[in-house]
Amino acid sequence: MKTDLISNDIQLDSSGKLIHLLGLKGLSKNQLTRILDVADNLIDDQGDLKKSKALDDMSVANLFFEPSTRTRNTFEIAAMRSSANVINVDLANSALKKNEDLLDTMHTLQAMQIDMFVIRHKQSGLPHYVAENISNIAILNAGDGINAHPTQALLDMLTIRQHKQNFEHISVAIVGDIVHSRVAHSDIQALKTLGTTDIRLIAPTGLQYHDCNSQCIDNIEIGIKDCDVIIVLRLQKERMLEADIPNEQEYFDNYGLTPERLALAKPDAIVMHPGPINRGVEIDSSVADGNQSVILQQVTNGIAVRMAVMEILAGKS
Amino acid sequence: MKTDLISNDIQLDSSGKLIHLLGLKGLSKNQLTRILDVADNLIDDQGDLKKSKALDDMSVANLFFEPSTRTRNTFEIAAMRSSANVINVDLANSALKKNEDLLDTMHTLQAMQIDMFVIRHKQSGLPHYVAENISNIAILNAGDGINAHPTQALLDMLTIRQHKQNFEHISVAIVGDIVHSRVAHSDIQALKTLGTTDIRLIAPTGLQYHDCNSQCIDNIEIGIKDCDVIIVLRLQKERMLEADIPNEQEYFDNYGLTPERLALAKPDAIVMHPGPINRGVEIDSSVADGNQSVILQQVTNGIAVRMAVMEILAGKS
Amino acid sequence: MKTDLISNDIQLDSSGKLIHLLGLKGLSKNQLTRILDVADNLIDDQGDLKKSKALDDMSVANLFFEPSTRTRNTFEIAAMRSSANVINVDLANSALKKNEDLLDTMHTLQAMQIDMFVIRHKQSGLPHYVAENISNIAILNAGDGINAHPTQALLDMLTIRQHKQNFEHISVAIVGDIVHSRVAHSDIQALKTLGTTDIRLIAPTGLQYHDCNSQCIDNIEIGIKDCDVIIVLRLQKERMLEADIPNEQEYFDNYGLTPERLALAKPDAIVMHPGPINRGVEIDSSVADGNQSVILQQVTNGIAVRMAVMEILAGKS
Repeated sequence: MKTDLISNDIQLDSSGKLIHLLGLKGLSKNQLTRILDVADNLIDDQGDLKKSKALDDMSVANLFFEPSTRTRNTFEIAAMRSSANVINVDLANSALKKNEDLLDTMHTLQAMQIDMFVIRHKQSGLPHYVAENISNIAILNAGDGINAHPTQALLDMLTIRQHKQNFEHISVAIVGDIVHSRVAHSDIQALKTLGTTDIRLIAPTGLQYHDCNSQCIDNIEIGIKDCDVIIVLRLQKERMLEADIPNEQEYFDNYGLTPERLALAKPDAIVMHPGPINRGVEIDSSVADGNQSVILQQVTNGIAVRMAVMEILAGKS
Repeated sequence: MKTDLISNDIQLDSSGKLIHLLGLKGLSKNQLTRILDVADNLIDDQGDLKKSKALDDMSVANLFFEPSTRTRNTFEIAAMRSSANVINVDLANSALKKNEDLLDTMHTLQAMQIDMFVIRHKQSGLPHYVAENISNIAILNAGDGINAHPTQALLDMLTIRQHKQNFEHISVAIVGDIVHSRVAHSDIQALKTLGTTDIRLIAPTGLQYHDCNSQCIDNIEIGIKDCDVIIVLRLQKERMLEADIPNEQEYFDNYGLTPERLALAKPDAIVMHPGPINRGVEIDSSVADGNQSVILQQVTNGIAVRMAVMEILAGKS
Repeated sequence: MKTDLISNDIQLDSSGKLIHLLGLKGLSKNQLTRILDVADNLIDDQGDLKKSKALDDMSVANLFFEPSTRTRNTFEIAAMRSSANVINVDLANSALKKNEDLLDTMHTLQAMQIDMFVIRHKQSGLPHYVAENISNIAILNAGDGINAHPTQALLDMLTIRQHKQNFEHISVAIVGDIVHSRVAHSDIQALKTLGTTDIRLIAPTGLQYHDCNSQCIDNIEIGIKDCDVIIVLRLQKERMLEADIPNEQEYFDNYGLTPERLALAKPDAIVMHPGPINRGVEIDSSVADGNQSVILQQVTNGIAVRMAVMEILAGKS
């Protein structure tokens, strides 16, 4: 399905309560802010995550049709920290060729008294399809095709808020393969909802993404000038040809975030990356490890945000 | 080992107490009824499963020599709902060629203080062999070759009892590859123990199974006439040649449960299937999803029955 | 790295407190004894393991770069028995080619609020490298190359102490591929620290290991004469050529522990093996299952020792 045709309407019930998290499109500023508030409350004064008993009567199933150990682990850890039972259902090699078979599997898991599905799938819109066809179970989108990765965007917003306090008066640069990045698409959506107007999408010509209201720039020096936040995307090697990039060195020469380029941003600009980083490809090691980098704080926030979303969907926060 | 030579005697201790669940042969009506009663008590008035603390000092190991994610998940979920620790020991590719090595592995797990083994193995009688050779640990058979799958039969009995109240005055039709189905074998055993006399085994000539006291019928219209319960088996594609079935369409034409055929049974007949279903092969979608279908209720009952068996074997119920 | 160049200094903080367990070299007799005492307290009078709540606010990650289901299960079970959350991070096939990428993965897991890493890696010294480069997380070495396997040696010491009460006046024979065995290297280290002076290393010429103060012997009958403890090592088949052993039968003929050979040791000598055993290769079945064998007690002690080490590293014991 074309991603701009995918609707998230079903994630709200008739009273406007969040019952699934399919994407950030369609969520109000208040709704996003509430998720960030709940997540913030799960972090103590030392920046450590609290443990929560909120989900101690819940069972969560991780349904990963696309292998991603790292993301699956974050949901597993978040569920455990909220005291839920977690089951990993291995579907990466499953032969669920027909949607009917897929729904049968989902209904079966629901009948086993699983309360929440965390779904990752390479097909855009798949979590929405499941949510439309199964009642009384919460669906949490952990990444669908190139469509959305809402918890990643939420953790990015939480990180920005912790450092910048507001969204209205900041400028945010996103650098890399924006057209194929569900992270970038969800970030743009969230930033706009939260009030950011100065969003700069910095990408080689072949990887540009046209979004009304955001600026497309193919020169990183121009793009990051005086910005407050730089979100560096991971380079997917299979996209390099499409963008006419002959090799990693050339990408680094043209788009890698170096100390020199970072110096063009505001002095207190923060550097973000969804991980795992390719050092020397999209980011220089000294920047990744430098004092403007908040990359590991993003990881911690990722657990807090996932705990928060699970607790909200379960009606426990 | 020929399955009729496999004895379940060892599953009772000298006082008649259940210490393993190897198969249903040899269990009395009272013993089966007690398991169903404990399972029923784990389901609340809304049909939802309760959580139980019964096994909170127990560790259960899932030993699946035959890959079956779905069945393994049911035992994992059941153990977690009873508050046990669960460990999945991956043995699908293990090179335990000699029985001695197998027993060494089992003794080692026992020495790690595992209290219960859930075993699935393609060799009929393997759980019995383990139970004979290891003391002081409960063995739960999760399917051995074509021999038995006792928890599946117990969940089927629980489902029948919830709808029909008695076993003596009902007629039950089992449709499909009966000769190779451990589910069917365990169902027949349980039904006979519980008092059902009208059991109809409906299968193509090549897949028939000769059981004294049950009727073998190769015509589904005749077989399901006026019956109260229809248990549809999953068609295993590798058996089709053996039964002289050229393709799935022909199987459906001759044995698929359609609305027309279902109309031949009693108006309140229930339709059961062990899952996962092959829609359009052994069952029509409208029947699988229709209001006589209790297939998803079977799934929920499967968790309750496995919790019940684990709690009984642990001496906690 | 050559194993004799690997330093464990970093496992103690400036006050001498154990903060990692990388190896036994560098630990004092008091420190080893304390670990054994904590482990002993986790075993009740019947020889069963207690459950502990000590780690109920901790998360432990098993990072196994080398596949070893058996050892991973022991750490998983130990962590669960101490009430920790456990996450298995599958790294056996991970493409962490550069050390930088490895550290990024570790830092990311730490940012997810994992409190302890259990690491197995085929590269000697890898856990030490991680401990040197990451702060504020406990590293537990579960076997690194041919360097060390400290928890295995600790469980061996606990087993010896339970049967022999002292280490000073006993003679210990280790039989097998000593040069390649991290178990043997850690055992020798521990025995020397605890005061054992009569250590006999029995191996074919090609598999001998030269350790100052221990005797190298290529004849098993001479080696085990009048000894108190016999530790039989597992024969790794790929080492047979190196030791000029044409086949398993010849190894058994020359080095297998038979009842006749065992009779040369003291009458109350105990027989140990790290498992899994190759019956009829390094040990005769009647010896493995005989009343001098303490092999399964070693397995139980292995859980107790791992619980103890985790609790000590967490500052909970």
